[in-house]
Amino acid sequence: MIVILKQTATKDDVKRLTKDIESKGLKTSVVVGTEQTIIGIIGDTTLIDPKMYEVDEAVDHVMRVSEPYKLANRQFHPNDSIIQVGDVLVGGGNLAFIAGPCSVESKEQIIEVAKSVKASGANILRGGAFKPRTSPYSFQGMGTEAIDLLLEAKKETGLPICTELMDASYIPLFNEKVDLVQIGTRNMQNYALLKKVGQEVKKPVLLKRGLASTYEEWIMAAEYIMANGNKNVILCERGIRTYETYTRNTLDLQAIPVIKKLTHLPIIIDPSHAGGKWWLVPAMSKASIVAGADGLMIEVHNDPEKALSDGPQSLRPDKYDSLMKDIKKLVKVMADGND
Amino acid sequence: MIVILKQTATKDDVKRLTKDIESKGLKTSVVVGTEQTIIGIIGDTTLIDPKMYEVDEAVDHVMRVSEPYKLANRQFHPNDSIIQVGDVLVGGGNLAFIAGPCSVESKEQIIEVAKSVKASGANILRGGAFKPRTSPYSFQGMGTEAIDLLLEAKKETGLPICTELMDASYIPLFNEKVDLVQIGTRNMQNYALLKKVGQEVKKPVLLKRGLASTYEEWIMAAEYIMANGNKNVILCERGIRTYETYTRNTLDLQAIPVIKKLTHLPIIIDPSHAGGKWWLVPAMSKASIVAGADGLMIEVHNDPEKALSDGPQSLRPDKYDSLMKDIKKLVKVMADGND
Amino acid sequence: MIVILKQTATKDDVKRLTKDIESKGLKTSVVVGTEQTIIGIIGDTTLIDPKMYEVDEAVDHVMRVSEPYKLANRQFHPNDSIIQVGDVLVGGGNLAFIAGPCSVESKEQIIEVAKSVKASGANILRGGAFKPRTSPYSFQGMGTEAIDLLLEAKKETGLPICTELMDASYIPLFNEKVDLVQIGTRNMQNYALLKKVGQEVKKPVLLKRGLASTYEEWIMAAEYIMANGNKNVILCERGIRTYETYTRNTLDLQAIPVIKKLTHLPIIIDPSHAGGKWWLVPAMSKASIVAGADGLMIEVHNDPEKALSDGPQSLRPDKYDSLMKDIKKLVKVMADGND
Amino acid sequence: MIVILKQTATKDDVKRLTKDIESKGLKTSVVVGTEQTIIGIIGDTTLIDPKMYEVDEAVDHVMRVSEPYKLANRQFHPNDSIIQVGDVLVGGGNLAFIAGPCSVESKEQIIEVAKSVKASGANILRGGAFKPRTSPYSFQGMGTEAIDLLLEAKKETGLPICTELMDASYIPLFNEKVDLVQIGTRNMQNYALLKKVGQEVKKPVLLKRGLASTYEEWIMAAEYIMANGNKNVILCERGIRTYETYTRNTLDLQAIPVIKKLTHLPIIIDPSHAGGKWWLVPAMSKASIVAGADGLMIEVHNDPEKALSDGPQSLRPDKYDSLMKDIKKLVKVMADGND
Repeated sequence: MIVILKQTATKDDVKRLTKDIESKGLKTSVVVGTEQTIIGIIGDTTLIDPKMYEVDEAVDHVMRVSEPYKLANRQFHPNDSIIQVGDVLVGGGNLAFIAGPCSVESKEQIIEVAKSVKASGANILRGGAFKPRTSPYSFQGMGTEAIDLLLEAKKETGLPICTELMDASYIPLFNEKVDLVQIGTRNMQNYALLKKVGQEVKKPVLLKRGLASTYEEWIMAAEYIMANGNKNVILCERGIRTYETYTRNTLDLQAIPVIKKLTHLPIIIDPSHAGGKWWLVPAMSKASIVAGADGLMIEVHNDPEKALSDGPQSLRPDKYDSLMKDIKKLVKVMADGND
Repeated sequence: MIVILKQTATKDDVKRLTKDIESKGLKTSVVVGTEQTIIGIIGDTTLIDPKMYEVDEAVDHVMRVSEPYKLANRQFHPNDSIIQVGDVLVGGGNLAFIAGPCSVESKEQIIEVAKSVKASGANILRGGAFKPRTSPYSFQGMGTEAIDLLLEAKKETGLPICTELMDASYIPLFNEKVDLVQIGTRNMQNYALLKKVGQEVKKPVLLKRGLASTYEEWIMAAEYIMANGNKNVILCERGIRTYETYTRNTLDLQAIPVIKKLTHLPIIIDPSHAGGKWWLVPAMSKASIVAGADGLMIEVHNDPEKALSDGPQSLRPDKYDSLMKDIKKLVKVMADGND
Repeated sequence: MIVILKQTATKDDVKRLTKDIESKGLKTSVVVGTEQTIIGIIGDTTLIDPKMYEVDEAVDHVMRVSEPYKLANRQFHPNDSIIQVGDVLVGGGNLAFIAGPCSVESKEQIIEVAKSVKASGANILRGGAFKPRTSPYSFQGMGTEAIDLLLEAKKETGLPICTELMDASYIPLFNEKVDLVQIGTRNMQNYALLKKVGQEVKKPVLLKRGLASTYEEWIMAAEYIMANGNKNVILCERGIRTYETYTRNTLDLQAIPVIKKLTHLPIIIDPSHAGGKWWLVPAMSKASIVAGADGLMIEVHNDPEKALSDGPQSLRPDKYDSLMKDIKKLVKVMADGND
Repeated sequence: MIVILKQTATKDDVKRLTKDIESKGLKTSVVVGTEQTIIGIIGDTTLIDPKMYEVDEAVDHVMRVSEPYKLANRQFHPNDSIIQVGDVLVGGGNLAFIAGPCSVESKEQIIEVAKSVKASGANILRGGAFKPRTSPYSFQGMGTEAIDLLLEAKKETGLPICTELMDASYIPLFNEKVDLVQIGTRNMQNYALLKKVGQEVKKPVLLKRGLASTYEEWIMAAEYIMANGNKNVILCERGIRTYETYTRNTLDLQAIPVIKKLTHLPIIIDPSHAGGKWWLVPAMSKASIVAGADGLMIEVHNDPEKALSDGPQSLRPDKYDSLMKDIKKLVKVMADGND
């Protein structure tokens, strides 16, 4: 961490500040410039809040030079983490193909979609039970009943199941029944939930990026879960909020190489929520895979016109099947390329 | 609501769609344009999800023409809502001056700050008990103990107290001890929490705008609380996320006239979190008041260098006092202006 | 176009407005809703400014239902435009591989890079002559001399050349010497320049998306050039400004399917400027191609450490070569897929 | 400037880099941390491009610790600049009240509006002659004829005139006839224009903030003009682009204290373009003045329904008059406050 002093700072200020910093068990190194003096802080600065010095009258501003996260940091864990979801591995070259409807709507629907996406190559089934809807008057999901329907679909197809947890009081139920616990974009900074997920959830966690979260905030959310005890976190980019409104959100595929550089956690892409339009999904899915994503989360619905939520962004099963065929070819040519 | 059809849509498509819409108890009116046909939907469309029609092969897109919120809508409630916090009224010309430290840190600190801000004209005391921090390694607040210290400060000064609720399991405690229950920016779309706040919280709610929430999403979050039973919502603008990083966030003061036009709820401004720099607070506070805000929420700390959180954005008591003097003058001249 | 009236609008308002609209040769259709009345405007509304009605006391707001652009609109030109740059075709399945240094710095440099990128498969050479730099104290490009050096590199390699036009007074020079005239992101809404480019430039134009431009504004900038006489426009996505600052900009690959749906113009991707980091370029380049881009514009420098501008985002020739090998494989597998 | 090395950097890397930096006449100071080594660069680093070192294999990233602008920097020019427009002073406590129609439309219109706004207290007349319109099919302004009409209005009222320059070829005309030369938001990074404005424009310049420009980019645009010879620059905040679309742009009033801290140039606010809605203008104008702005630029039209551009954001003369009365009261109470 570097403390940049104001031009008006005196030698006494420097003395006072270095003494204060050293009293916390850290070392300092002072650089006297022509215009400004800076104090370098040496040691483990993760525990220092830069704002504590920024408020000092003699300080202009404070800059971090290293990342504030440890457990998620690739620097201290150079190999890719591989996360196990049911008996499916994700990360380190293993791809997650998560598919299913936005919301579980009936037994017939979820079983039909599950069979269909499995036949196309999906290896994890998704389906919303509790839905975070912008309007209190919109369909809020079937709740616990939906989880039981997902379990029936699992029994039929063998696919592990993924659904979103919105309320910590359901953690015991999710521990019992759900294979991959999703934390949604609107709860990415719900720290009360993240802590309990870290402490109590016994299953891997799919952590979606917040609607307007930086890479660092996103990784820090993963760090919350990890620091509280659950190391099995998969990150999911699902589009960020920008000024462009033609698409629901702007899909940030640069996140793939960035997250892989900064962390050892797997990252998958959700192109359905990102664009909000089904016809954007195939192009963005293929792009994600060749850019190095560890998987895809795609909404598939057997009858999008009748979908109770997010119909416009759902692929029909035949389009998903055709997309998965293309993806398999791309995966193959990329694997050949590495020989 | 208006459904804009594709150029390729046929008369049969129009027939099919109007029939479907009318089966929901709504009326339709078809406008055949030179390039496109549109279907107007007449009736209470709050319950219809525009996406249900957007997915139709014959439909290009769907536009709302009226707002999706009812209880918060000024159209159906032309008079300003006045919310009572302890014995302080907020809204309809009554100003809330909420002040206090970011975090409660000790009995001495909170009582000293409380006395000081009261003397300057504050009428509600704030102080963080549970803190949503980006890093799991940062100070997370003193928790329930802080609430008891706030109560001691209340006893000393008579100021009603405001603090943030992050976890629904604390609602009984907040109902017992807290006068104004804050929902923070990171939980603005934590719908599980909003529902319980609507159903169970017996005190007024201060709802901060989400970091990257639109006016409509923000009002819909208030609508969640109101639709679940608690009508006493005060909105709080605290800066939104933009590309500009010199300031912590960009304070959106246009929110004041916009929110007052769209809703009947009071709106107050938090200039401390918006800019993240104490020297921005006086200018933005005065600007807020003359723009018509129903109050201010300002961080005041007796010793910002030692603050355990957000020191750089906290005003010292003397600066707060001087600001409040300026504000009183502005309030007076504005009142004179209305005579 | 649809005019949504206020609830307070009277029958006389409706009469007055429809009369006014019809006086402009357009037809109207009135839909009386339970809460609001709307007026549909039928006919060619491209020439009407929605704001003219928005200001009316009886009008709540006005919505367009069709796009404001004509010449660039795929609706009126269903086939892909194919643009010829020198003897290279771009669009309709023909890929542009534009490569070269950010700035032309010397004869040796540009010829060495040109030979190298040609050997790797590039078909157009780029090199900055006039550089739009944020600081007046930074290197501003070699100017006209750089264009002559580009011509020498063209003589050596046969590659057509692309460089940025910042000042309309250079149009005659560009018409004489440059094969593809780039309009940079900072000039995308420099309408004085766009008009002259439309009227006077005899070569195809590469139009970069503005730093914070919507798809519609970008297409409207192309429409400016086209409406003024030059139909040969290639669009180039180069990252947009968002709140995320780890990367220089956020690359918006959804732009590829969106632009292809809305327009018939080719779209290429510049991953170098988007991320600002060379190590993001390979992943984003491959992603762009499989997402359907009509080409790539990539910065390649033989000695990035010594580059006078944008070194960190430039690939070394060996990395470019390796990337082009990967891309050829992907292009092949995609072509096979279409058989 | 601070160069942060990678953990893998060797002593030889440090030696090589410090030697290179010192060869440019700068000094270095090396701080060896537990995790990272950093090199402080001492001396005038304005001329160094941080990217030149960022590309080095041993370097992680480079951070500036001081601002890249000199002429506009308050650090080297502590007193407020006062700019003279005709015989009106702007800055240092002198307020500019610029008002007039978006576009000049006729002699009657501009003279009527000029007389009216003068009577209300405006001291500079604005009126668009050349209009930057998003659509090539929209009204583009009356051009040079409009400037002559502005001159007639000036003769009638004595108000100096302000209008936008879009094309450098008109500089001689503007030097002859216009008192304050506006550079619009879309040309804020049109560096070819900025240079010529610096070199050739003999009148003061009103530099609007770019649609998505940071404070630093905006100040650097002023620095372009100043470094090329014209020191008389007034900055104008007019709203920035964010995800919120209810308002045309988000007005950033924090810009007022920030710009005043960083530079010595005057800053005025344009609330008309910021919100795009006339009813936002009074609240935002009053807020701007109490926040310390050096003036306001407000669109006033005698017949907004008939305005050829931007009618919805124009105030009627009576509303402008009433606003100016309020502003005078606020200015008075603020002045009293300083006694």
